[in-house]
Amino acid sequence: MRASVIHGERDIRFEEAPDPVLQHPTDAIVRVVAACVCGSDLWPYRGVQPTRSPHRIGHEFVGVVEAVGADVRSVRVGDFVIAPFYVCDNTCVNCRNGFSTSCLHGGWWGSHDGPGSSADGGQGERVRAPLADGTLVVVPGGQPDDALLPGVLTLSDVMCTGHHAALSGGVTAGSTVAVVGDGAVGLCAVLASARLGASRIVAMSRHETRQALARELGATDVVPERGDDGVARLRELFGGIGPDVVLECVGTKESMDQALRSARPGGQVGFVGVPAGGPELPVGTMFSTNVGVRGGVAPVRGYIEELLPEVLDGRIRPGLVFDLELPLARVADAYAAMDERRATKVLLRP
Amino acid sequence: MRASVIHGERDIRFEEAPDPVLQHPTDAIVRVVAACVCGSDLWPYRGVQPTRSPHRIGHEFVGVVEAVGADVRSVRVGDFVIAPFYVCDNTCVNCRNGFSTSCLHGGWWGSHDGPGSSADGGQGERVRAPLADGTLVVVPGGQPDDALLPGVLTLSDVMCTGHHAALSGGVTAGSTVAVVGDGAVGLCAVLASARLGASRIVAMSRHETRQALARELGATDVVPERGDDGVARLRELFGGIGPDVVLECVGTKESMDQALRSARPGGQVGFVGVPAGGPELPVGTMFSTNVGVRGGVAPVRGYIEELLPEVLDGRIRPGLVFDLELPLARVADAYAAMDERRATKVLLRP
Repeated sequence: MRASVIHGERDIRFEEAPDPVLQHPTDAIVRVVAACVCGSDLWPYRGVQPTRSPHRIGHEFVGVVEAVGADVRSVRVGDFVIAPFYVCDNTCVNCRNGFSTSCLHGGWWGSHDGPGSSADGGQGERVRAPLADGTLVVVPGGQPDDALLPGVLTLSDVMCTGHHAALSGGVTAGSTVAVVGDGAVGLCAVLASARLGASRIVAMSRHETRQALARELGATDVVPERGDDGVARLRELFGGIGPDVVLECVGTKESMDQALRSARPGGQVGFVGVPAGGPELPVGTMFSTNVGVRGGVAPVRGYIEELLPEVLDGRIRPGLVFDLELPLARVADAYAAMDERRATKVLLRP
Repeated sequence: MRASVIHGERDIRFEEAPDPVLQHPTDAIVRVVAACVCGSDLWPYRGVQPTRSPHRIGHEFVGVVEAVGADVRSVRVGDFVIAPFYVCDNTCVNCRNGFSTSCLHGGWWGSHDGPGSSADGGQGERVRAPLADGTLVVVPGGQPDDALLPGVLTLSDVMCTGHHAALSGGVTAGSTVAVVGDGAVGLCAVLASARLGASRIVAMSRHETRQALARELGATDVVPERGDDGVARLRELFGGIGPDVVLECVGTKESMDQALRSARPGGQVGFVGVPAGGPELPVGTMFSTNVGVRGGVAPVRGYIEELLPEVLDGRIRPGLVFDLELPLARVADAYAAMDERRATKVLLRP
């Protein structure tokens, strides 16, 4: 089979790889039907996170189960499954608390082989999925039709991550919300906020097509300004004080600063942007404004089952964030398109 | 009259001061019946915050209204009142949102004279109280008896600040909680957590008398260890992962670090320690653990009315945090006793 391997900065290759085999009785083998590139894949692609040695890459995929280990109970051969962007047993205390990203026995795709982690990445033709009962979510009714497939694929990461931003920010019915970041996660955070009943949702975006998409997903306002001007514009929109909640969906020092300064006193920042370059939070400012900060790596496993029915019946359409589709063999082009912001999110099919 | 003035590092004097007069129609004049020294008063006392020129000090007091301006409606001459540690109108949008510490028209005690701030400090015989209808809370039934007075005085700051820590940390029925800091605020945070129904409350304290007091106020466990050992001990106590909530009631880099590392994945840090030395928060750690941080300067004005009935009927006894009482004229001794940790909290009476 073939799979995507990162060799270094801006060097992604689709190359021959050994067919995965069941290594542990809790494993499943999944034939990938669709995968995609994550904004966080761009950090190693750009060399911001160095690649010490070549390894498989990709952590968002859906597919069909081809084999299961002897101890796998809830996943069967032939099932169509969604893989969250990490591995978890879905039973440990952290999983039960709703934070399966801190699973005591789980791990990551494209890391190393083990009972709770996989050296396989999601951007390949086949993947060994560890802790299959915990990790994989079966889609009832089998493979969704082509119109719904992109939306189902977003549950692997971006839609659930946007949802996590909204929950971490405390979005609830009537909340006023601003979203920093107009990438796929930011757009999903707009959709998630609308779904949770936010009364007003500002997309902070300078890109016309993304502004339009944000409005389609539920944004009531668009603010292209950034920095002081962005803060001022949000205050103007929200009673002189700013919105209740700001969702930080980028991960830079600038975006977090924008978020912290934009929320009203006593408001909350929900953050899901993978911190790049390790911005630190100014606790003095947080103290004086009572703006809270909460978020992180999204425990999407628990959200998939909640959101899937709404994707399948078309109530929510997160699949709109895909604006380019390529064959998996052209994965390098997919990275380049996202890196150069020619695409928001690329869907890949083997 | 006489009042406390800070002249510089470790230089607090009780000296002659002009009798306060009504300057604005929204003012009241309060004769102080009891006041106290706050942990945060120790920052300028120790010179951590420099004193550029002598000014009045103290921001926690209760007393009797002696005069009111023409526009004051809800406060009357003869009323016994609690002053929160700041001035607010209790009507602006931030006040209505529950964050009266960010009142658009309010300010501070011991700062400068204005319609929303007062050059008078709380550690004096009389105080001009701006925005009296918003700032002052009338105690029904007049001056409480001597046994209840200390508890009522804590509503001016420490008890409500402990309550704010608990709310900011999201303490609710069944929560597991650890409290970092065994000063008056930390002890009040223990009490507040118990009041909110926390199932288990760990006081992190090395001081025997404070440990005992923490237990009296509702702590179920005491952990004297700090740093890595403290984290390990808390994990041991709470299913290998740590408590749901950690309340940071000190304000140093070490105490915030302790709090952040002690909470379980997906837990929350409620913080009310005034940040000294401006510790910054490690957003990378927060991202990977999903531990949120929320808190700040406590909007106690809104909490006083909620907690006062329980203090007056003896259901909660925050007054236990006082372990020394001195005449107001000996205010310098009060600071020294707290600075040298000979006292947790000193009550001062004119």
